Formats: sequence, structure tokens, C-alpha cells
Amino acid sequence: MKQIETKFNVRYSETDQMKIVHHSNYAIWFEAGRSDFLKSSGISVSDIEDEGILLPLYEMNCQFKKPAKFEDEILVLTGLKGLSCARVIFTYKVYQVNTNVLLATGETMHAWTNKFLEPVNAKKKIPEVYDILSLTLKSEF
Amino acid sequence: MKQIETKFNVRYSETDQMKIVHHSNYAIWFEAGRSDFLKSSGISVSDIEDEGILLPLYEMNCQFKKPAKFEDEILVLTGLKGLSCARVIFTYKVYQVNTNVLLATGETMHAWTNKFLEPVNAKKKIPEVYDILSLTLKSEF
Amino acid sequence: MKQIETKFNVRYSETDQMKIVHHSNYAIWFEAGRSDFLKSSGISVSDIEDEGILLPLYEMNCQFKKPAKFEDEILVLTGLKGLSCARVIFTYKVYQVNTNVLLATGETMHAWTNKFLEPVNAKKKIPEVYDILSLTLKSEF
Amino acid sequence: MKQIETKFNVRYSETDQMKIVHHSNYAIWFEAGRSDFLKSSGISVSDIEDEGILLPLYEMNCQFKKPAKFEDEILVLTGLKGLSCARVIFTYKVYQVNTNVLLATGETMHAWTNKFLEPVNAKKKIPEVYDILSLTLKSEF
Repeated sequence: MKQIETKFNVRYSETDQMKIVHHSNYAIWFEAGRSDFLKSSGISVSDIEDEGILLPLYEMNCQFKKPAKFEDEILVLTGLKGLSCARVIFTYKVYQVNTNVLLATGETMHAWTNKFLEPVNAKKKIPEVYDILSLTLKSEF
Repeated sequence: MKQIETKFNVRYSETDQMKIVHHSNYAIWFEAGRSDFLKSSGISVSDIEDEGILLPLYEMNCQFKKPAKFEDEILVLTGLKGLSCARVIFTYKVYQVNTNVLLATGETMHAWTNKFLEPVNAKKKIPEVYDILSLTLKSEF
Repeated sequence: MKQIETKFNVRYSETDQMKIVHHSNYAIWFEAGRSDFLKSSGISVSDIEDEGILLPLYEMNCQFKKPAKFEDEILVLTGLKGLSCARVIFTYKVYQVNTNVLLATGETMHAWTNKFLEPVNAKKKIPEVYDILSLTLKSEF
Repeated sequence: MKQIETKFNVRYSETDQMKIVHHSNYAIWFEAGRSDFLKSSGISVSDIEDEGILLPLYEMNCQFKKPAKFEDEILVLTGLKGLSCARVIFTYKVYQVNTNVLLATGETMHAWTNKFLEPVNAKKKIPEVYDILSLTLKSEF
């Protein structure tokens, strides 16, 4: 399975008074991984949005296994799990780089929509993007 | 089922360039609801933390049904779904107040831990808090 | 000087590992106050934006006097300090409600722009909004 | 003047419905730069905090010159402007990497405190850290 690596350092602002990274940041880290995954396939989210196509979430889940802490270097591994004319599913694994400890896992489910957030058929509307993702998905097996 | 209401307005900073509330904010809104739920039962998160007991998440999920937008008034309904010596589960429903439209649902699963994030038995460590939550849960049926 | 009150509770996610509210949140609290100030004058930011007029910041400053903490109830007092065809200046005071202690003060300076972020003359483009703000400013003395 | 470079990509969550980076994020970017500045001098914020010394802000200002946008690569240049037993001042310049356009400038003023946020004399409490910063400051001229 094609997985893209995204690395960054925990920011102080991401900590909370438990002295760990606040859980809401994992959604943001997943998104950083997703952006890199698409970019690595030659797909720019900005370009898709300029064509009037959005990719909002309709569902997400996250399993928090170990806390991330300030000054940790973080690695997000992002993969494409599913694709259809209407939907895309990404999976994520978050690691602490120094120790290689798995901190969290998760999935985000997205719908292809127009800018009014109405469903569109990605295969018809942005066929080049759809084909790239389709090939990426098939190459995983 | 006892459900606590939390109301607030969408903040401009919570929007993203899709002109909707960024999905990471729902985790923060759930947390606002959870704080109010505990407070309404006479439980202060700060007091529990002062006793050395934390309640970090080990899992969360969220279903996004309709987008929230800037200047929307938001209602979060928070309920207690499960409780054990080791764990607590909360459920959430997020509504747009004006229209009564359901925007999102979700759950957060938490572990009772000490300040080193090691598991503790809440029934033994903070029996008063545990009893209050236990009665709240039973009173739901 | 007309000052509008905005009240809310500190969110857990707003804390950092110093166990105080992270300073980046004051910009967000100022904005909540600013939104309420405009709303209280009958001005909707969304409506202005629908007319293609934006009000981005070109400068801000903040003085942090005492830390805000989790579960504090916060009061933001927002006032209009200056107005011209090109610019608007707001001032803010942030209080802890229970103690009436002043936590922070600040200012935000904004430019009237079109959606390409190019300067526009607010007096010409949105005269009703300009006049309301102008009267508000004058009524302060 | 010693200036440390910090590079990262704009995150989608950092945008707002003006389709630019929300201004509250610059405080977070400054902080990322500040962490790197200290780290480059061999100073770990976590280590200082473990010794019971905190460095909260008492003031900040920011001048926003051009908007940052999603997928921009950002460069923060961080410098040390002032140092005393009681205080530290950092300066920041934020650039868009591709175009070398200056997006924002700013300063943050910090007080050396104990964990109760009471003032301490850094020269006495953490002399090694103070001396490193002092030399860094002098080497700037």
C-alpha cells in the first residue's frame, strides 16, 4: 500500500494542561498528511477547489494510543483506503519519530461535492484526478 | 437519558476556505459539552485534576451531516453513554439552533488515569465522582 | 465610549502545558468580541462579505497581564477606536468575570478590502455600514 | 544579527473563509520559530520547564503585510532582540518561500517566571541558559 510520509515537530500551542498534545490536533495532522499524499500524486487541493470541487469530511475516527508531547518529532503515514465516484477514504498512522512508537491511528471519509457542498460525480467532473487516485489505489495490491 | 445543553456562536477563526467550520473544531465543541455535562453534575474537571486524576481520550468518532457556518448559533447535546472503573464514554449531538438541523454526532471514549497517564481505578480513587456519574447513568433508563 | 460585552467559558483546548490559556487564543477572543460589537450595531459580517467586502487585519497588539485558566468565565469588552474610508480600529479588554481582574488588553487594525484583498472605500461601497459605525464612533464622546 | 530559519507548509485548517490564513496562526508560527531559535542555541524549552522556569508572554504585536494562503511554503526568521534578568524579546519575519515576499513581522515579549507565573531572575535561576542567550545577543553586533 502506497503510504506517504509527513514529518513535523509538535508545536507548543498544540499542548494542553495535561502536558500532552490536545486530541483535536490529530484531525489537523491527518489533514497535513492527506495534503502531502495528494501532492505526491501530483494533485493540488487548491487546483481542485479552483475547479469548484470540494472534498469535505462526512466521518472521521481516531484511536489515541500514546500521548504526543511538546518537542516530539512526529511522522504521519497516510494511505488511500477507498475511492468511488462519490467518496474517498484515507487512513493514517501517527508515530513518534525518535522511538518509532505508534501514537495514533485514524480514518477520514470524504465526499466529492461542488462548492455548494452538493454531491458530484468525481469520475465525470475531475476525471484526471479520479484516474490518478484510482491507479494509486489499485497499485496498492 | 440525561442530556446537557451547551450553546455558543460559531467563531470566524473556526471557518476554513470551504466557508464552513473546519472539522477539527467538533472535537473542541464536544469537549465544551463534556465540561458542561460534568459541571451540571457538580463535577469540576479542575478539581479532579488537582487530585491527580486525568481523563484523556483513547478514541473518538464524528459523523458530519451538515456544515456549520459563521454566525450560526450552535447547540451541543451531551450525554453519558458508559462508565466503568477504567473508562467513560460520552455521546454528542450538534444542532444549528435556528433551524434545529442536526449538524453532527459523535462519541468520545476516555480512560481514567493518573498524571503520568497510567490507568487508575476511578471507583477507588475518586469514589464521589464515580458515584455521581454512576447514578447519572442509571437515571437515564 | 460604547462597549459591547461578550461572555464565554475558557475551553480545555485553549490551555497549554503552562496550565494557562495559550496566548494565540486572545486574537480569537478579540474576534468574538468584534463580531458581537458589529452585530449589536445591526451589522452582519456575513452580509458584508456577501457584498464582496472583507475586513482583514493589518496589525494587532496584545498586552497579557494575568493568565486565564480553564473553567474561568471570560468577559471581553469591545470598543470602536477609529474609522476611516480605508480603515477600522477596535480595542479590547479581557476580564475574568468572577474576580473582575483585567487579564489582557489589545487592539486590532483592519483594512476595508474587496475579495481580492485590494483596498476599497467603505464610505462608497457600503455606505449604510460606514454610517452606522461613524455614528457609533461619534456617540462615544 | 543571528536569525534562525523555520520552514513549514500552510495547513488547510489554518485558513478561514476569506481564503487566507487566519491571523491568530501567526502567534503560533512565531512560537515555532522561537522554539527553533532556542533549540539551535542548545536550549530545550522542555528542560527549562522541568527546572520550574516558564517564559510566558506579556506582550505581542504583529504587522500583517500580505496574506498567506493554503499550500504556501512559509519561512519564519526568528531573532533575539533583547534580554535581561527578567525579560526576553524576540522578533520575527514571515516570508512566502516561493516569492520571497514578506508576509508579516512581529515581536513577542516574555517574562522569566516560576511555575506559579511569579517573576524570577533568570541570571540566577538558569545561568547557563542566560549566558547562552546573552552571548547570542552580543554576537549580533
